[in-house]
Amino acid sequence: MPQVSVKNKLVESAEDVFRRQGFNGASVQDITSAAGVPKGSFYNHFESKQALAVEIARRYARGANFAVLSGDGPALERLRGHFVAMVDRTRETGVEFGCLLGTFASESSSAGDQVRTAVREILEDWTEEVARTVREGQEAGEITSARPARTLAAFLIDSFEGATLRAKTIGDQSVVAEQLEIALDALRA
Amino acid sequence: MPQVSVKNKLVESAEDVFRRQGFNGASVQDITSAAGVPKGSFYNHFESKQALAVEIARRYARGANFAVLSGDGPALERLRGHFVAMVDRTRETGVEFGCLLGTFASESSSAGDQVRTAVREILEDWTEEVARTVREGQEAGEITSARPARTLAAFLIDSFEGATLRAKTIGDQSVVAEQLEIALDALRA
Repeated sequence: MPQVSVKNKLVESAEDVFRRQGFNGASVQDITSAAGVPKGSFYNHFESKQALAVEIARRYARGANFAVLSGDGPALERLRGHFVAMVDRTRETGVEFGCLLGTFASESSSAGDQVRTAVREILEDWTEEVARTVREGQEAGEITSARPARTLAAFLIDSFEGATLRAKTIGDQSVVAEQLEIALDALRA
Repeated sequence: MPQVSVKNKLVESAEDVFRRQGFNGASVQDITSAAGVPKGSFYNHFESKQALAVEIARRYARGANFAVLSGDGPALERLRGHFVAMVDRTRETGVEFGCLLGTFASESSSAGDQVRTAVREILEDWTEEVARTVREGQEAGEITSARPARTLAAFLIDSFEGATLRAKTIGDQSVVAEQLEIALDALRA
């Protein structure tokens, strides 16, 4: 089934093209070139660049380490493990390219409703996953902040995204790990 | 001097075009159209789209409310005032378009070295401005965190940028004010 193979090649290549060039900076031509497939084949598989970006964003989100969040041990350690895995992932794919979800979020005003809605939903789901662990930490008395678990979860994610944005501009990620510790401290404030 | 006037028109229009469309999503044609000047006139005033983006980023940075940071009163109140002014500014220019500096930071890997360097320098200067007030708060015993003032300042800025990124995707900025309070709490953790 060569059709499937072309689609797979597009998906495999597009994540890195979008990460390096952003949604607006990556053309369909850039994506088909990176995939080594004819430009004309793109629209046999995806309705639009937006539709591919939505698929790539969801795939990227599924690649996060959620297992550590629902594992054993103190909630704060599980939260740290989850975000350290995000930091490691961003380092492996290039500090200067940051987090793909953050990149799509930044471009959500110009990338169109389909992309904006997908990014919002992914962020909401991610926040809910993190909030579950925060809630467990609150119930165990380990997390002493009385703020809603969802608010604290959003705060952790957004601190990670903001620090990753700064790391992109300096090409050094050490700031992200440092700020993760401050953000975790805030849960006991 | 009509030359000056064309340049001014370009600068005045470009900020909003970049904010709405991002660096990669905004073409020179988009910028000259918004300015109501002939496309050909662009290169009489700017070497490149990059050069204009650098000027726009610096101009945007100068527009922040730094006066409140060095004013009177408790350091935490001054820090809150500074970031609330950033939140207000982002609301006035469109929540869905976020913070222009964050947008340029997100695109810094594809926008080229000139833009990346300018954004990094602006972020560093901003951090230094905020750190001065954090340091005063530490000296006054109002900020009890023993972490370096610069690290805490970067944390405040990055929390703002991360929350503003989320606000872009939901079109609602209330999350930013909420997270600002958590970030300020962390300074007393």
